[in-house]
Amino acid sequence: MKIRIGIYGYGNLGKGIENAIRQNSDMELVAVFTRRDPTQLRIATKGAAVCHVSEAEHFVGRIDVMILCGGSATDLPEQTPALAKLFCVVDSFDTHARIPEHLARVDAAARAAGTTAMISVGWDPGMFSLNRFYAGAILPNGKDYTFWGKGVSQGHSDAIRRIEGVLDAKQYTVPVEEAMNAVRSGTEPVLTTRQKHTRECYVVAAEGADLARIEREIKEMPNYFADYDTTVHFISAEELKHDHSGIPHGGVVIRSGKTGAALEHRHVIEYSLKLDSNPEFTASVIVAFARATHRMHTEGTVGCKTVLDVPPAYLSPRSAEELIRELL
Amino acid sequence: MKIRIGIYGYGNLGKGIENAIRQNSDMELVAVFTRRDPTQLRIATKGAAVCHVSEAEHFVGRIDVMILCGGSATDLPEQTPALAKLFCVVDSFDTHARIPEHLARVDAAARAAGTTAMISVGWDPGMFSLNRFYAGAILPNGKDYTFWGKGVSQGHSDAIRRIEGVLDAKQYTVPVEEAMNAVRSGTEPVLTTRQKHTRECYVVAAEGADLARIEREIKEMPNYFADYDTTVHFISAEELKHDHSGIPHGGVVIRSGKTGAALEHRHVIEYSLKLDSNPEFTASVIVAFARATHRMHTEGTVGCKTVLDVPPAYLSPRSAEELIRELL
Repeated sequence: MKIRIGIYGYGNLGKGIENAIRQNSDMELVAVFTRRDPTQLRIATKGAAVCHVSEAEHFVGRIDVMILCGGSATDLPEQTPALAKLFCVVDSFDTHARIPEHLARVDAAARAAGTTAMISVGWDPGMFSLNRFYAGAILPNGKDYTFWGKGVSQGHSDAIRRIEGVLDAKQYTVPVEEAMNAVRSGTEPVLTTRQKHTRECYVVAAEGADLARIEREIKEMPNYFADYDTTVHFISAEELKHDHSGIPHGGVVIRSGKTGAALEHRHVIEYSLKLDSNPEFTASVIVAFARATHRMHTEGTVGCKTVLDVPPAYLSPRSAEELIRELL
Repeated sequence: MKIRIGIYGYGNLGKGIENAIRQNSDMELVAVFTRRDPTQLRIATKGAAVCHVSEAEHFVGRIDVMILCGGSATDLPEQTPALAKLFCVVDSFDTHARIPEHLARVDAAARAAGTTAMISVGWDPGMFSLNRFYAGAILPNGKDYTFWGKGVSQGHSDAIRRIEGVLDAKQYTVPVEEAMNAVRSGTEPVLTTRQKHTRECYVVAAEGADLARIEREIKEMPNYFADYDTTVHFISAEELKHDHSGIPHGGVVIRSGKTGAALEHRHVIEYSLKLDSNPEFTASVIVAFARATHRMHTEGTVGCKTVLDVPPAYLSPRSAEELIRELL
């Protein structure tokens, strides 16, 4: 029997989940839930229902894992605990500082209902967390570095769009090659925020807008840009659409550490991602962990878990024998 | 209470384990077991016993995990099942093709005795297996590549030393940069053995030996060298000692795969290691998995497991709360 999946929220991530399910023959999409008018929503999967979010509870017993595709700012803090009362759930909650609090609330809901929840699944948090973790457990005497990009930051792009006179914008976070190479040398350099990343902004301004002011407002914006070397390019709406419509991202997690009687040997562990589509890759990670969530649930696990709790073998539909023979 | 470790075999790997234990304050070395005369063996850890292998059984109840540091060709196929009858054990069995058979024998011994065994721990098999596995579960529609080096291959160095007229030798496996870059582009190239790696040999020949014959015998050696572009450098014993006494290694696991409704998006996942000391890094991985083995045993797991069965959190001495707060 296939693992029956529900998608709760049908933006870029929800569409990515739908595509990912089609690459995993042990899964099927049962229904997509939307806050919009369901009659206006077209999905790609034949046979799957499209429902209003208010109908979700009627799917208890018909969905094994509900995948929550809302945003971390306001959607998931409410949705994940609420849905965990009804279903096994997986989310991609990515506000790092608030993960412990989110976990506690989801755990309470899941334990009360006897469901299994998995939060903060994706690549950061997610695969990057796992790699920071494995590397730290192997090389306790060492130092971690994470670089992001080159990729589109939605939050920074939105911040630019809020400036008066800006019609549209796209912001790329770019890791500094020299800083990455210094880390790769194993010398454990101390790096400032400015030394690690630069920010490139592509901005469409309204006709007659004061470009110098816009550029200054971007570059001086606290938290978002003030601590970085920022470049601003004014381009046309056509150029933005033609050259910057993708959602690429990626990054690198590096740990260097020392071993030996006199700590004389250096080792460098590096994990890197180059992604054409951030939401589609995130969706691919989530779908694998949805499989694991279902398996852990069928084995009796209850409560809220993270990627650190999942035996890797649970992510695959393949048998243990096959995995050992082909991958070990 | 600390996790009490035994080291069975005190070569490069055993010494690496001893060093790694000193970096993990939740562990202590109880005893080193050797086939040599124990009175002739000096170890670095004060308070730890040095015993002949025949005394191991007297340590039942005093050692939580016995780490087996013998070779995969003849030692481990005998030692791991035998010791699993007495202790929880971890080994680094690395003959990929024989892992299923080794696992079955160790599993039978461990189940009969109620112990927990973990085999094939290190970086390949080990961390490389895990990374091939995670990447494959995330991107089912894709292709794996593994490159090794630049690093010393003990087996190839030994093969050269067996040639008449060779006094000593060191062989480096070198990945081909252009091949790695082709893979990183996401185009999923088909690569021959020759296209992926080259072999560099540093050879000390006996005085008056026929160098042309030695070079020819190396380059034509089936399995070891014939399928590769091989370079042979004749050097002095002093040069070999001065420039080639280390045991560096490393490598790269890359998976590229596609997502999207029309598979229009490419993603590249890369995991790489640059190691100053192959045995010390392998030891560092083993020690983390020894911790997990002990924890799985205390929770009731019995039988032979692999790295694919271990929830990542079990590798760390740190609490779940701390891990989630700092690493997720």
